[in-house]
Amino acid sequence: MQQMEELRAAVKIEAAKIDGYMRQDLAALEAARDGLLCEVLEYGLFNGGKRIRPLLVVLASRLCGNGDEDAYRLGCAFEYLHAATLFHDDIIDNSTMRRGKTAVCRQYGTTQAILAGDFLHAMSMATVGRLAGPRGLEIFCNATIGMVDGEFMQLRNAAKETLGEPDYYHAIMRKTGLLIAAACEVGALYGGGTDAQVEALRLYGVHLGCAFQIVDDLLDYQGDPARTGKAVGNDLVEGKITLPVILARQMAGEEDRRRLAALLAMDVRAAAVAEVTAIVSRVGGFAAARARAESEVASAVEGLRIFDLPGQQGERRIFEQLARYVLAREK
Amino acid sequence: MQQMEELRAAVKIEAAKIDGYMRQDLAALEAARDGLLCEVLEYGLFNGGKRIRPLLVVLASRLCGNGDEDAYRLGCAFEYLHAATLFHDDIIDNSTMRRGKTAVCRQYGTTQAILAGDFLHAMSMATVGRLAGPRGLEIFCNATIGMVDGEFMQLRNAAKETLGEPDYYHAIMRKTGLLIAAACEVGALYGGGTDAQVEALRLYGVHLGCAFQIVDDLLDYQGDPARTGKAVGNDLVEGKITLPVILARQMAGEEDRRRLAALLAMDVRAAAVAEVTAIVSRVGGFAAARARAESEVASAVEGLRIFDLPGQQGERRIFEQLARYVLAREK
Repeated sequence: MQQMEELRAAVKIEAAKIDGYMRQDLAALEAARDGLLCEVLEYGLFNGGKRIRPLLVVLASRLCGNGDEDAYRLGCAFEYLHAATLFHDDIIDNSTMRRGKTAVCRQYGTTQAILAGDFLHAMSMATVGRLAGPRGLEIFCNATIGMVDGEFMQLRNAAKETLGEPDYYHAIMRKTGLLIAAACEVGALYGGGTDAQVEALRLYGVHLGCAFQIVDDLLDYQGDPARTGKAVGNDLVEGKITLPVILARQMAGEEDRRRLAALLAMDVRAAAVAEVTAIVSRVGGFAAARARAESEVASAVEGLRIFDLPGQQGERRIFEQLARYVLAREK
Repeated sequence: MQQMEELRAAVKIEAAKIDGYMRQDLAALEAARDGLLCEVLEYGLFNGGKRIRPLLVVLASRLCGNGDEDAYRLGCAFEYLHAATLFHDDIIDNSTMRRGKTAVCRQYGTTQAILAGDFLHAMSMATVGRLAGPRGLEIFCNATIGMVDGEFMQLRNAAKETLGEPDYYHAIMRKTGLLIAAACEVGALYGGGTDAQVEALRLYGVHLGCAFQIVDDLLDYQGDPARTGKAVGNDLVEGKITLPVILARQMAGEEDRRRLAALLAMDVRAAAVAEVTAIVSRVGGFAAARARAESEVASAVEGLRIFDLPGQQGERRIFEQLARYVLAREK
């Protein structure tokens, strides 16, 4: 518990610094760009986000030996790309809310949300190209390319009731893992890490991203709507089959399996949420999914053992706490 | 006329080569990416486009001394960004058709058009970063950023009836000029041009882009719908005040000016097209706009005089013909 407090304090300080750099960027834009564009960016970027991706860039760079200020600017690019993705996702998912605020596309319009996303996209790529060179840019662009590819897969998989574990891991890797892994990898590159260090941090990001998404999918069933801001069973209602259900299907007996299949095949699934939750819980789907998240976190932490110099222990500990925090989070 | 034939033949050969590189890129993607994504890209990219932007990259590089094959790959990136912009524009403008084919967003859906645009965006940035370095990437990203900024300006200006010439030039520079100028500038950079050569080609692109857009706006009133694929007066109907009208307003007597203002203020402007066209024609708005396009072309050609070595005359002549072709085009 004390560790969590320590982490929270450290993250808060860094997030405030990151917000400061983002505000600098916006102020520089305001002189040259359309006023409405700046308003949309301000609205969409400052919404209480935890700035996890920039934080990972800064920490990875520092762990590899470079703690300079441009690491923050590089980190902001990851937040810009993340925000661009959310602007466009909210149009695609027809979302009305994002983090307790009206979504950008609802507040300002679809046109504005598409354009502001494209703007952030280009701005983030320019920053990464400038600060992290062609190799960093390639990693960054590949993460974007993979995210889009993942969305297309999801469009096709939405209807599939036979979705298995490999499909699930493939999808969350693209949806969440790639950009988080890219933040760690590009940060390490920028920090001047050796190939082994860069690879260790990339893998940390892969495992962290997967753990993060598994917990997200667990919270969708088990979270407190007052804290998560989403209705329980939202994924199921939208036709998304996530890990707890996939594992429950594998672990259930014949009767439960048949009942689950019938529930998942329903056209209007809102009525099925309570019963699906009960079956998944009874056959151990939630517990098994949590065990997977724990194992991802263990792998994430394990890979950082190569950072064994005394001077590296401060950052390494934050990385470890961050991974454990993912398991503890409630929203 | 013979010059035009010579140009057309040269452009056709180069466009076929550019299409070949684009097909290679798509084939490489198909192995790794979602099938539907590849189908959307194939549909959206191969629609009889003239490949002007890639052509400018290749020619600029060659004029500066480098005629290698990667110049074509770099050129394709400009076509990808251009296509990404069109995918998103068709959503924004609620367009049903593009170049005589159903628009991507109508054929495959808004979600698919947003995502495929984002994909091409990232792919184009990665290519430019790889082949043209941080400076080339910065020019490329700034063109994108400027285009978005221009779209926001246009959103605000759509309602303005007092739009003047400076607003118009500012808008077309962003909408068309920046990316065409970037194609020339990045091509020149890639080709190893001197600072003076890079700047001369950038300016050529600025003037060419402006001439191109002015002629586009003239064709909207004066073109043959069977060739342009658009109804006459489409811009006016959509509330876009373009150069012929702006100049007509400056040149008209008191009575015509008042009548124009009344027509432009109408809610449904479709009924006003014939009368606006008649007034603009009578007071000389079309002729004055065409004179501006001719003067842009003259400036474009003039700036290329620094390429005075015997070995540069072949490419330089194509640049000159291309600029003159812009004035002659009918669609």
